[in-house]
Amino acid sequence: MDSMVCAGLAREAGHRVIALTVDYNQRHRCELEAAARVVAAIGAEEHLIAPLDLRSFGGSALTSDTAVPKDGAGAAGAAGIPVTYVPARNTIFLSLALGLAEARGAKHIYVGVNALDYSGYPDCRPAFVEAFEAMANLATRAGVEGDPFRFETPLLHMTKADISREAHRLGLDAGMSWTCYDPTADGLHCGECDACRLRAKGFVEADLPDPTRYAVEPRW
Amino acid sequence: MDSMVCAGLAREAGHRVIALTVDYNQRHRCELEAAARVVAAIGAEEHLIAPLDLRSFGGSALTSDTAVPKDGAGAAGAAGIPVTYVPARNTIFLSLALGLAEARGAKHIYVGVNALDYSGYPDCRPAFVEAFEAMANLATRAGVEGDPFRFETPLLHMTKADISREAHRLGLDAGMSWTCYDPTADGLHCGECDACRLRAKGFVEADLPDPTRYAVEPRW
Repeated sequence: MDSMVCAGLAREAGHRVIALTVDYNQRHRCELEAAARVVAAIGAEEHLIAPLDLRSFGGSALTSDTAVPKDGAGAAGAAGIPVTYVPARNTIFLSLALGLAEARGAKHIYVGVNALDYSGYPDCRPAFVEAFEAMANLATRAGVEGDPFRFETPLLHMTKADISREAHRLGLDAGMSWTCYDPTADGLHCGECDACRLRAKGFVEADLPDPTRYAVEPRW
Repeated sequence: MDSMVCAGLAREAGHRVIALTVDYNQRHRCELEAAARVVAAIGAEEHLIAPLDLRSFGGSALTSDTAVPKDGAGAAGAAGIPVTYVPARNTIFLSLALGLAEARGAKHIYVGVNALDYSGYPDCRPAFVEAFEAMANLATRAGVEGDPFRFETPLLHMTKADISREAHRLGLDAGMSWTCYDPTADGLHCGECDACRLRAKGFVEADLPDPTRYAVEPRW
């Protein structure tokens, strides 16, 4: 949903949108189908799906058979980084986005990171994105030639409730999007992982209907 | 050859070596076989080959049918960034290395970038690697928990002649390595691209025999 709202805000800002989805052999492959639905709704110019098997790298519950926690510890704001953290995932994603942007001549790179309700992932923090932008403008032709990239993080300081409201305001059906880290075999949101709990809580706090089909009613 | 010497120096420094090769659909696929030879000679613990199709991204002579320049302009130090620059390539490579290192618990990331004889690639400069390290230590669990990654660039200030001498000193046969951007159909170094010219010049300046089989005798 964060990526969907982020893309919607990029379009609203007047940009032509090139969408990048990474097929990293994530256990929640449903998000790839959701990405295609969002791209169609947004009217993106191009949708590049980049296969990159992070399962061979290991080190995360999202790319292995390690159980996704269902006890709400992450959602409750417990200390530490959750086992669903994928080593350097957002660094890898932003690097791919940088390469694609440079190849296409795009200058604005939108990323839906969120420093609130972010579950403790280090690569969602403002300082990370700022450092990435500085690095990117040393790494590339564009940076050297004086026409730098800008990394846009319109969701950075939004709550999940804010994001739900933005989806509604932009006319984007949140039911198109996928959040759950551990989908059921019949394609439902589990309702128990941190991602599901944060999603559900956002709709309630925004006083908006939640179009999501959960296997278990989320609590938080 | 730079990667080979870099791996040899990592081993000499007492590290166990985990090798990462990116199969990015480069036109010089010979380097994948060379990497396997080097890994065997070094005695690396693991060799992860990560397929990532940068040809679908485009924007470079190395990942398209655009001709690789043979006029020596790059090797001669002409201004500008050559068409063999791959958008954000080293940023993507280092991001993948960062993810692999974090997943394996490794802390030293060796990269064979070289600020001399570097053909004008922005992502070979010292400032780029420094900025990447700063970013990496904000992006990851390790950086947050106070046990930062170190990016080691032992070749940074070496000439190609120095690198040839280091290969010789380390007992690594330079003939195992692959440099050419535009291999001939029968698997020879072309002898005319910038990479071949720099390679050949290095052996001559180091007064070492050049084990490379070139289709055309390189000049510079």
